[in-house]
Amino acid sequence: MANITKKVSWSSRTDESGAAGEGTPLLNGSEQPRLSRQSGGGSIFQIGRLSTVDLEEEITSDEDSLRGRPKEIPHNEKLLSLKYESLDYDNIENQLFLEEERRMSHMGFRCLEISRWVVCGLIGFLTGLIACFIDIVVEQLAGIKYQVVKENIERFTEFGGLSISLILWAVLNSTFVMVGAIIVAFFEPIAAGSGIPQIKCYLNGVKIPRVVRLKTLVVKVCGVICSVVGGLAVGKEGPMIHSGAVVAAGVSQGRSTSLKRDFKIFEYFRRDTEKRDFVSAGAAAGVSAAFGAPVGGVLFSLEEGASFWNQMLTWRIFFASMISTFTLNFFLSIYHKNPGDLSNPGLINFGRFESESMAYNLYEIPLFIAMGALGGLLGALFNFLNYWLTIFRIRYIHRPCLQVMEAMLVAAVTATVSFTMIYFSNDCQPLGPEHTEEYPLQLFCADGEYNSMATAFFNTPERSVRSLFHNPAGTYNPLTLGLFTLTYFFLACWTYGLAVSAGVFIPSLLIGAAWGRLCGILLASITANGSIWADPGKYALIGAGAQLGGIVRMTLSLTVILVEATGNVTYGLPIMLVLMTAKIVGDYFEEGLYDIHIKLQSVPFLHWEAPATSHWLTAREVMSSPVTCLNRIEKVGTIVDILSNTSTNHNGFPVVVQITGSDEPAKLCGLILRSQLIVLLKHKVFVELARSRLTQRKLQLKDFRDAYPRFPPIQSIHVSQDERECMMDLTEFMNATPYTVPQDTSLPRVFKLFRALGLRHLVVVDDENRVIGLVTRKDLARYHLGKHGLEELQLAQT
Amino acid sequence: MANITKKVSWSSRTDESGAAGEGTPLLNGSEQPRLSRQSGGGSIFQIGRLSTVDLEEEITSDEDSLRGRPKEIPHNEKLLSLKYESLDYDNIENQLFLEEERRMSHMGFRCLEISRWVVCGLIGFLTGLIACFIDIVVEQLAGIKYQVVKENIERFTEFGGLSISLILWAVLNSTFVMVGAIIVAFFEPIAAGSGIPQIKCYLNGVKIPRVVRLKTLVVKVCGVICSVVGGLAVGKEGPMIHSGAVVAAGVSQGRSTSLKRDFKIFEYFRRDTEKRDFVSAGAAAGVSAAFGAPVGGVLFSLEEGASFWNQMLTWRIFFASMISTFTLNFFLSIYHKNPGDLSNPGLINFGRFESESMAYNLYEIPLFIAMGALGGLLGALFNFLNYWLTIFRIRYIHRPCLQVMEAMLVAAVTATVSFTMIYFSNDCQPLGPEHTEEYPLQLFCADGEYNSMATAFFNTPERSVRSLFHNPAGTYNPLTLGLFTLTYFFLACWTYGLAVSAGVFIPSLLIGAAWGRLCGILLASITANGSIWADPGKYALIGAGAQLGGIVRMTLSLTVILVEATGNVTYGLPIMLVLMTAKIVGDYFEEGLYDIHIKLQSVPFLHWEAPATSHWLTAREVMSSPVTCLNRIEKVGTIVDILSNTSTNHNGFPVVVQITGSDEPAKLCGLILRSQLIVLLKHKVFVELARSRLTQRKLQLKDFRDAYPRFPPIQSIHVSQDERECMMDLTEFMNATPYTVPQDTSLPRVFKLFRALGLRHLVVVDDENRVIGLVTRKDLARYHLGKHGLEELQLAQT
Repeated sequence: MANITKKVSWSSRTDESGAAGEGTPLLNGSEQPRLSRQSGGGSIFQIGRLSTVDLEEEITSDEDSLRGRPKEIPHNEKLLSLKYESLDYDNIENQLFLEEERRMSHMGFRCLEISRWVVCGLIGFLTGLIACFIDIVVEQLAGIKYQVVKENIERFTEFGGLSISLILWAVLNSTFVMVGAIIVAFFEPIAAGSGIPQIKCYLNGVKIPRVVRLKTLVVKVCGVICSVVGGLAVGKEGPMIHSGAVVAAGVSQGRSTSLKRDFKIFEYFRRDTEKRDFVSAGAAAGVSAAFGAPVGGVLFSLEEGASFWNQMLTWRIFFASMISTFTLNFFLSIYHKNPGDLSNPGLINFGRFESESMAYNLYEIPLFIAMGALGGLLGALFNFLNYWLTIFRIRYIHRPCLQVMEAMLVAAVTATVSFTMIYFSNDCQPLGPEHTEEYPLQLFCADGEYNSMATAFFNTPERSVRSLFHNPAGTYNPLTLGLFTLTYFFLACWTYGLAVSAGVFIPSLLIGAAWGRLCGILLASITANGSIWADPGKYALIGAGAQLGGIVRMTLSLTVILVEATGNVTYGLPIMLVLMTAKIVGDYFEEGLYDIHIKLQSVPFLHWEAPATSHWLTAREVMSSPVTCLNRIEKVGTIVDILSNTSTNHNGFPVVVQITGSDEPAKLCGLILRSQLIVLLKHKVFVELARSRLTQRKLQLKDFRDAYPRFPPIQSIHVSQDERECMMDLTEFMNATPYTVPQDTSLPRVFKLFRALGLRHLVVVDDENRVIGLVTRKDLARYHLGKHGLEELQLAQT
Repeated sequence: MANITKKVSWSSRTDESGAAGEGTPLLNGSEQPRLSRQSGGGSIFQIGRLSTVDLEEEITSDEDSLRGRPKEIPHNEKLLSLKYESLDYDNIENQLFLEEERRMSHMGFRCLEISRWVVCGLIGFLTGLIACFIDIVVEQLAGIKYQVVKENIERFTEFGGLSISLILWAVLNSTFVMVGAIIVAFFEPIAAGSGIPQIKCYLNGVKIPRVVRLKTLVVKVCGVICSVVGGLAVGKEGPMIHSGAVVAAGVSQGRSTSLKRDFKIFEYFRRDTEKRDFVSAGAAAGVSAAFGAPVGGVLFSLEEGASFWNQMLTWRIFFASMISTFTLNFFLSIYHKNPGDLSNPGLINFGRFESESMAYNLYEIPLFIAMGALGGLLGALFNFLNYWLTIFRIRYIHRPCLQVMEAMLVAAVTATVSFTMIYFSNDCQPLGPEHTEEYPLQLFCADGEYNSMATAFFNTPERSVRSLFHNPAGTYNPLTLGLFTLTYFFLACWTYGLAVSAGVFIPSLLIGAAWGRLCGILLASITANGSIWADPGKYALIGAGAQLGGIVRMTLSLTVILVEATGNVTYGLPIMLVLMTAKIVGDYFEEGLYDIHIKLQSVPFLHWEAPATSHWLTAREVMSSPVTCLNRIEKVGTIVDILSNTSTNHNGFPVVVQITGSDEPAKLCGLILRSQLIVLLKHKVFVELARSRLTQRKLQLKDFRDAYPRFPPIQSIHVSQDERECMMDLTEFMNATPYTVPQDTSLPRVFKLFRALGLRHLVVVDDENRVIGLVTRKDLARYHLGKHGLEELQLAQT
């Protein structure tokens, strides 16, 4: 099994021609043709085209040439996109860096540490402010909308002609959603969805283009306001995580490339290693603001992102989370004209669960577990449906205008379905004196009563969740809940993946809360002893947890988030059990929703461990070879040619020493990145020039930091014919001590080193320290455990 | 600065002679003599001798020879003990291992995964049972004790002669403590204290002898019962963490070496890598059972132990924690004759904090922060006093019998002080109809009243904490609280470090709760608006957090533990703020208590990162050299000689290939451990024998696992003169792909690799892959950031 021959070289992998199609896994000993750009590349190119994660701008020209091709495309789960680059979490320890570190005093490191805390505080503060802004704007706009529609409905209830109200509602919703969809689809497609899969990838070490830019943030915030106000089955919590991450990436760099402002601060943090840490903190701050769950935020960041756990980093992340929820709480308390009352820690407030009235008993635990299993099943169904829907979208709904139309259609359908349900519902409930319903609709109910179905539909999802948790027993009848679950399930499933900026947390909670409450009511009705089953809110909470767990499949962080959101740890144990059951059951059928979307994007995502049965693969078989190496002192022309070679996508080059005159092979002496070479070329750091122009200042680390992270392409750098004859001395700039592995190292061992240290390039050497290959993220991400054992994904230029 | 010459070779480091004394840091460029066994070694030997962490058995002979030496010994914080070995978290990927892994099917890995979950479930269950056992026994015994004393006091209050009651109390306490101290001091000194520093070290990768043995567990459990019943200022929570760890180490190995029982299960887990994961789970289960804080337990394990965060592992740890608290809860509910009522999730129950009555306001936050600062100060004072006390104990209280006497003295003094305080207190409070006091002492109070000081002193510490948190305002007068804080502070400080098995969590909480409540009362009295300050219990909670944080300096895990223990997340934010403030203030003055004790034991503890200012050190300067290397096919006699050489403590040997006849230097081709060589010698795996006895079965991985973890010493293996001439082929057994670094790698880079992968040996090679040195834990732990920049600790045979 272990003798897979790899003729496809790293440098020309994408150029080799081969037949496209449903490629079978590569691990059967014979060589399979790879998908290439020439033949199947076109159709594959389409796959990634219009999905949420990253679109290259220069695609319109290709698009036309692809018309008329068969629409049938290969199952793209088996592909790995070559489009995504890796982030580099390994410090480039070259002479410049070491000199700077050595110059720095103990006090200097202290100051750095303090500025890290300051940055984290700022991240938390700004994330909290953004959450506050979203919350207030959504509340105001939704208030106006519901008020208008309510008045309209009330006017027409008596006279008949409610269809006008329906049209009003549908048009209002569609308008909001249209605005939201237009800015997302036309201006920043990466802002679509919740952004959680993208942040997961970023923290995993995949460079998702434009994911942490200011423009993305603006579109995201506006988009989420539009889609929530537009009455879609979405939440505003997921996007907060993305927003927090963007804030973090922006603040920590002390400049905005989009706004062309450089504040000349935090320059030390301008590299992937530091930036990633801050983005973790930002994501945590986002979770914290969304759910009022600072500890849950930290755990989310760790569960999704961190590979190497660092105590100080964790504290900083915790600090950012804390500040974030506190800021939100503080400003919301002012907004609610009750300053100082810190009772709004998050965007969603589950309300207070009083432990006395809602204590659970030992014999309820099997029930909870059964509900967890049901949640897992429903979650898997949700994911399965959404998976096919996404495939459909990728294939047929490419164009931004189509996407906008689909979003508007969903908005209109949502309004129509809601209205129909409310219209035909005869679940009238008496309106208590201190009722909590914001917009109680009387409709055809008697005076002093309101329509119960409207509480669930005619409301922001957050309020609906809260009323399902807390309204007293008897507020909903089972039929209402059943119908609501059914319709909302399909609406939410249809909605997720639209080109609007919105999250899936709240819809999941709402579906789960509805069927959970239904379970509670049914249990109470079939048992004689009503006292324990009296409160269906308890079951609504368990159901909400089960459904959410079944869809997103997080356990530890989600448990803590839910516990923090309920404000009561008594429910810790049942929630844990439910989430675990939901995960186990759900994983049996289908992956988690975020993982599905990551896979559909063919992102080279590294999991926690190498596949269990991969011990028979060694670095030699996994690595890419031959590798383009550079000499320690290299001709400029050679470097330019290598960098300009469009058929390669090299980003790291081993630097070798060739003893002149000797026939001994070259020994590894360092590693240099494409981005470094670009900066060197831009500044014309040539040996000859250094000799002639002695006064020229030495290249400093600052020059690299200024260029980070948007290094210019090689095409933009002009090198004259004379300059091509010059030499470049890389000694000072290369990382002189790259991590290496011997060629016989097993894949799990390579994987562990790579993952634990967050590497981008790992040099494979023979026993005399000669370069024989290079392991990159894609080489490792290719292997995954499929249904029939180890499978190898194919690399393709999607 | 970077050119420290190191003449002290790795192989003979401890034998080189040099003057002992207050060695100044080594980093001043000149060479300093090292402490050696011949001169200063004797007195250093004494240092580690009678402290809590590990005692070698064969010390009595040396002890006599040391008499008459000056008692003045060097400040042993600047030493690093050579006594401690490292654990090896790097899989030994030799041919045997790889063959086994390759043979294993996907199903096999599934089964392994399931058995990991089963083991974690078992760990949780057993830890919960142990916690339950401790709780019930302590409650029963303490109940009897307090009842006896109370009756006695009541009898003598009227007639006078209360001194008899005092004597009775003191004698009872001393007796219990004596039993506890005797089993600890004479049978298993490692069971002293809370065990948290030891578990921290274990999870960090230091092998602390006997720390996870069954005997230790038995002594620990009995010891903690005795010391808590004996009325010392201790808690039973800390030891639970140690107990959980021992349970985990035992269960996961599927055998007990002490009981000589091998159940032939879980053989796959018999290596450091797997065992460490389970011990993490055990420690988490311990925290979970102690505080009813499953999430806190997971975070504790991660904060203290994990370097590489793995999602699946975290879930298993979480599962163990969950089962543990659930088991405790379930059995306690049966014991309390209320089965099914899950309201006792932990050993300490903070009681329910109702959010309505105890809400906090924004302007209270500065007050909380100030209390955090106070907690940090008091914590630093506590640690400072305990530090000097520990030094004193190490120097003068060596012998077990002295230790037992000290423990008895403390017990008697505690009883006397408590009695005196109660006697002279005139804080009488009316005894309400539904009073919660378990043993209300009337003493000189009027009928229907009880002595308030007695509530604090005449009670188990857990109950005292709860009454400080929840008793209504006015239960304690300020003088009572002030005096209680003062006396308990010094008592707790004196008690920690005694040769009894007990923890510092509860005393810290108690001290903090007392002065916190005092703050609350004072605040209420100086402000006009009494409604907000009405409940001093809130301040008691904040004070408890501040004091505990000031002493142990954990933040994230402690926040979660406290939040889970109060059962109310409303206090999350203030507790976080308080713990952070306490840590920042405390760290300014003194390290955390556990760190102090680890340092006093000269344990080579690796922190999260290399010291910030250590970039100018490279692997070449840090490594130990020359290294004893073995040939791939080596003479048995040579191996035996190397292993028998008592002057070395080698545990890993690079294996090299020397091309015969060529003068080229040897190239690295693998790494083999002492323990492996021992097994090979024991099984006489010699080339010649293999040829002659063809039927002899091949050595399997099982043979190594059976010998783990107590490999026999080389002295116990008989090798005849003929056999010495045989050859041993190491190819199959060595780890063929050890991690290596080039010699110019900077210390932080080496550190990162070493720490992230949990290595024991890291080979330093030159650019032709020739071995030039070896980096071990001690080489890295030596460098630490002192007050005057980077300092180098000295290695000594303590």
